[in-house]
Amino acid sequence: MRPLRTGTPTMTNFFDRVAERQKARNSLLCVGLDPDPARLPAVVRRSPQPIFEFLKAIVDATADVASCFKPQIAHFASARAEHELEQLIDYIKGLGIPLLLDAKRGDVGSTAEMYAKELFERYGADAATVNPYLGLDAMAPYLAHKDKGVLILCRTSNEGGADLQNLELKNGKLLFEHVAEKAASEWNFNGNVGLVAGATMPRELGRIRELVGPMTLLLPGIGAQGGDIEASISAGSGGGLIVSSSRAILYADDGKDFAEAARRQAIITRDEINAFRFAA
Amino acid sequence: MRPLRTGTPTMTNFFDRVAERQKARNSLLCVGLDPDPARLPAVVRRSPQPIFEFLKAIVDATADVASCFKPQIAHFASARAEHELEQLIDYIKGLGIPLLLDAKRGDVGSTAEMYAKELFERYGADAATVNPYLGLDAMAPYLAHKDKGVLILCRTSNEGGADLQNLELKNGKLLFEHVAEKAASEWNFNGNVGLVAGATMPRELGRIRELVGPMTLLLPGIGAQGGDIEASISAGSGGGLIVSSSRAILYADDGKDFAEAARRQAIITRDEINAFRFAA
Repeated sequence: MRPLRTGTPTMTNFFDRVAERQKARNSLLCVGLDPDPARLPAVVRRSPQPIFEFLKAIVDATADVASCFKPQIAHFASARAEHELEQLIDYIKGLGIPLLLDAKRGDVGSTAEMYAKELFERYGADAATVNPYLGLDAMAPYLAHKDKGVLILCRTSNEGGADLQNLELKNGKLLFEHVAEKAASEWNFNGNVGLVAGATMPRELGRIRELVGPMTLLLPGIGAQGGDIEASISAGSGGGLIVSSSRAILYADDGKDFAEAARRQAIITRDEINAFRFAA
Repeated sequence: MRPLRTGTPTMTNFFDRVAERQKARNSLLCVGLDPDPARLPAVVRRSPQPIFEFLKAIVDATADVASCFKPQIAHFASARAEHELEQLIDYIKGLGIPLLLDAKRGDVGSTAEMYAKELFERYGADAATVNPYLGLDAMAPYLAHKDKGVLILCRTSNEGGADLQNLELKNGKLLFEHVAEKAASEWNFNGNVGLVAGATMPRELGRIRELVGPMTLLLPGIGAQGGDIEASISAGSGGGLIVSSSRAILYADDGKDFAEAARRQAIITRDEINAFRFAA
């Protein structure tokens, strides 16, 4: 298998597009779109498509602050809102903003093909999160899409992530370190791999950065999950970073001015990230 | 945490229901429902709901041979056929047959809650497959449903499954052995855990059986994936077994008599399983 970053995609891939936009907007912020029907502002609840209505307003209010958007698919599927997700994705792509679909799929052979089809063809996502537990052949159908970004779970933002990910292997490495090394070499034959590394785990995040060089890391866990912006930006520096916040922005206010409140929170978050980014 | 199998669910749970039906039908066979639009018989293709039409005929033809049915969700999602999946599930549940939804989800905190809601509430599945890479707290929302079966991936049926699952840990165990041990103890506080162990990996399957005692194992990989029935039934004996075959049954014939052909293949598979089961 080829070493790190020798893939030569002929199209502009997801990570290049995000990096360009991050530079243009001076923002590493990714706005996570996790609609919770129980938390929608009263003002959109009577709409025939409350989820789409809500998120369209959030997207309009935060588009110039966001380097990309990240809808989380379970929040739509649990509400039987696939159609609203399709509309939302079409809307975001129509604005020319990179779109990462958070789905964390993982399955074998012909079923993995079906998941790749769901995420990249049906929904047309520019990138997706995937789970590495089933190994390389299970991720191959995503990786085959050279122009798409494939963000492999490495160290997730939850405490329980340690149950498997921090197990020590016989060779002295932790499991997530093994995943990071594979992702940066053998698995990255198309140059379209990134990793998910929780902002709540700055020590592990720093270790991942050491192992993968400039590879892009997606950092969820800022905001509602309590990730420390200073510690995680500092630990993640030295390569691509996509810093994701969802609930703290979406639910900044549940009144009529929810979108303006979301925008204010997005700007605060972007500026906090930039403060530590340029301090680092 | 409580030891193996001390959970005392007050309702009849999924595994009890499957075991009852396996006894009544003298069949360990689970018919996997993986509709591939490219392989549907010509006779159903012009139907307004070809996937539902196809699978309803398969269910009708194999119901008395099946201990349960296992729709695979990616095959519906990639075809934009959530509504057909809902109808199919309602139909199968109307027949009183246990239903396992193969989705292999895995995510953290509030998102895991949304996935549990998707699988157990929206679709009303009796059981679901889940991915352990994110740890116990990520599986907790599924495990909290005492009456539902939670089938945790342990050793999957693909070659690449070894990439992570067969890594040797510092304590000498392989990763999938660690998952098996956790699943049979700490994670099984509600007595509703089973494991997925590929029929293509009889050696690993036997090791899992040693570690988990009578816990139910779901064995995918019989049929199109080439799993050896004799070796896997023998290795898996000593506890609950659900033996799943999908494509070999579904696509036994693509002519007008596809459902009869599926029934014949299901009976052959059931009988092969029984031959080795009672020989063991």
